[in-house]
Amino acid sequence: MRRPTIKDVAELAQVSLKTVSRVINDESGVRARTRARVHEAIAELDYRPDPSARSLRSAQPYALGVVYDNPNPYYIISVQNGVLAACRETGYGLQIHPCDSSSPLLAADLIDLVQGARLAGLVLAPPMSERMELVSELVAHGIKLVRIVSAAEDPKDGSPCVWVDDRDAAYDITEHLIQLGHQRIGFLWGGKSHRSSWERYKGYAQALADYGIGEDENLVLPGDYSFDDGFRGARRLFALPDRPTAIFGSNDEIAAGVLAAAKSSGMHVPYDLSIAGFEDSPFSKQSWPTLTTARQATEEIARHAAYRLIAELRRETDQPVEAPANEGFSPILVVRGSTAPPRPAGGPGGA
Amino acid sequence: MRRPTIKDVAELAQVSLKTVSRVINDESGVRARTRARVHEAIAELDYRPDPSARSLRSAQPYALGVVYDNPNPYYIISVQNGVLAACRETGYGLQIHPCDSSSPLLAADLIDLVQGARLAGLVLAPPMSERMELVSELVAHGIKLVRIVSAAEDPKDGSPCVWVDDRDAAYDITEHLIQLGHQRIGFLWGGKSHRSSWERYKGYAQALADYGIGEDENLVLPGDYSFDDGFRGARRLFALPDRPTAIFGSNDEIAAGVLAAAKSSGMHVPYDLSIAGFEDSPFSKQSWPTLTTARQATEEIARHAAYRLIAELRRETDQPVEAPANEGFSPILVVRGSTAPPRPAGGPGGA
Repeated sequence: MRRPTIKDVAELAQVSLKTVSRVINDESGVRARTRARVHEAIAELDYRPDPSARSLRSAQPYALGVVYDNPNPYYIISVQNGVLAACRETGYGLQIHPCDSSSPLLAADLIDLVQGARLAGLVLAPPMSERMELVSELVAHGIKLVRIVSAAEDPKDGSPCVWVDDRDAAYDITEHLIQLGHQRIGFLWGGKSHRSSWERYKGYAQALADYGIGEDENLVLPGDYSFDDGFRGARRLFALPDRPTAIFGSNDEIAAGVLAAAKSSGMHVPYDLSIAGFEDSPFSKQSWPTLTTARQATEEIARHAAYRLIAELRRETDQPVEAPANEGFSPILVVRGSTAPPRPAGGPGGA
Repeated sequence: MRRPTIKDVAELAQVSLKTVSRVINDESGVRARTRARVHEAIAELDYRPDPSARSLRSAQPYALGVVYDNPNPYYIISVQNGVLAACRETGYGLQIHPCDSSSPLLAADLIDLVQGARLAGLVLAPPMSERMELVSELVAHGIKLVRIVSAAEDPKDGSPCVWVDDRDAAYDITEHLIQLGHQRIGFLWGGKSHRSSWERYKGYAQALADYGIGEDENLVLPGDYSFDDGFRGARRLFALPDRPTAIFGSNDEIAAGVLAAAKSSGMHVPYDLSIAGFEDSPFSKQSWPTLTTARQATEEIARHAAYRLIAELRRETDQPVEAPANEGFSPILVVRGSTAPPRPAGGPGGA
């Protein structure tokens, strides 16, 4: 069977080729009734515009790339879904590109990716988004991008971004624990290649300082954003002679590890130990007890970032998109079952 | 600054346009020294071939699409990572396309996607992969695809696939519970639009039959592959006058819901209730107790499926890839802390 052409559509709809073309390209200047007739003819013939011809006309690449290096599936899926929402609303495809943020070849790889796959631009997730030498190299190669970064305010570094105020939310979590009566609060770091780890630590330290609680360096342990580091960190904290009554894990994965360590030591959470995480992952709602955490609107953040990029891409075209500015998002404290006042001293202990 | 053209390269390298074109397209017939001179000129000018022109020449699409409708991030990320591994080894990009499998417009959407984005082909995850009328329509539109399906054997329906023997693994899980001494085993269904739900139920029913245990329809409840359905289903089973001593949730999300329901009812798992899931998700390793489940090699399955497709796409090119056949994968029983022998009758009960 011969593939129907634009000419067949024009004949069936009894309009000119130019009118069909206008309808296909969603241009103005075609009356509603004519437009409907063309659409009917397209449907009847099962006509589909030749995509390569279409691309030549617009000469516009059609997919964004989302670049991430993060072991957390929930975070990644949320970023993907947010970017996808913007892509679908504006007609872009989405290519995914997980990568090794520590690779010395990363810049070259990303340049190859964008040029080889003709991507319109990139959405960079942390920690790539926070490595300015990488960002500069990509920009120098003419690559359009937007970054999702952790920062307490607009970094105003000349590169478009959406920033997440992790410090503020970490402050709120720590304050919540202090207000419950905790004085000895453990802190388990995320990976130090992530700006968010530093910001969350700063929020923790600032809250302690504001409430006049001296920071005990034994209670602050390095690690990564992983369950295993949460588990190991918690066991180290449990072994201290004067162990903490609460532990703030830098994300929900870490908090999940702390919870498992507490249960495997026979502790009752929250009575023997309060635990807080960060992210509002599904785990935090499904664990027993459920986890106190900070809700990050990751999907909305990613959608906003993608729009920031698309507005830039469309700025000089005939299909402009309203240009959003850099914008900040603040995660919100969510109090659940894993935090409570500490047991009075001398009361029944855990393991 | 004007973008350098192929003419600038030819001038600087003092060769003909044709020679530059040959070098760019890696064709033979250019002396090594000339080739080097062209490469130097390309580097000096930072010339990059116009990708849309390149695509016209090679006329080869360069990305696969992966199509899924599944609320489970771990499963999706594993599928994506497996397909990506194959894409990277063979030079394809990967576009993602989550969709609503119940949409009546799905076939048209996917045809538009493939044609609009010039995708080379699709990897269909369940349940889309199991709707043969959809698959047929895509194939009729010339779309190359491979399917990941649930089946006890090669479906041999003329469409390339990788099959997962859910029935066999569900049999093993049920047998494990029976061998521990359980006779009243609850079964919580996954979504009935997924073939895997039926296959897992069949495995459960077959094991009961083989061990001479009559099926009690009160113990078998419908649902979806979700935590909430696991929670609700468990509460209904707990309310039975003769409640089950073990519950088999059709995936780990359901099992997580059962675990939360058990804990919120004050039960001790596994002593008051044994629980088994299916998938070997991170949750199953991180919960307390850890979950008995079946390990699915999702990433490997997806990688194999992508290779099956790529071999098909490359069959008649000068870069053939060895063509793997349809292949089956069997999930493996993983016994963890959530299953144990039932309490002897008359012993201390739960809530």
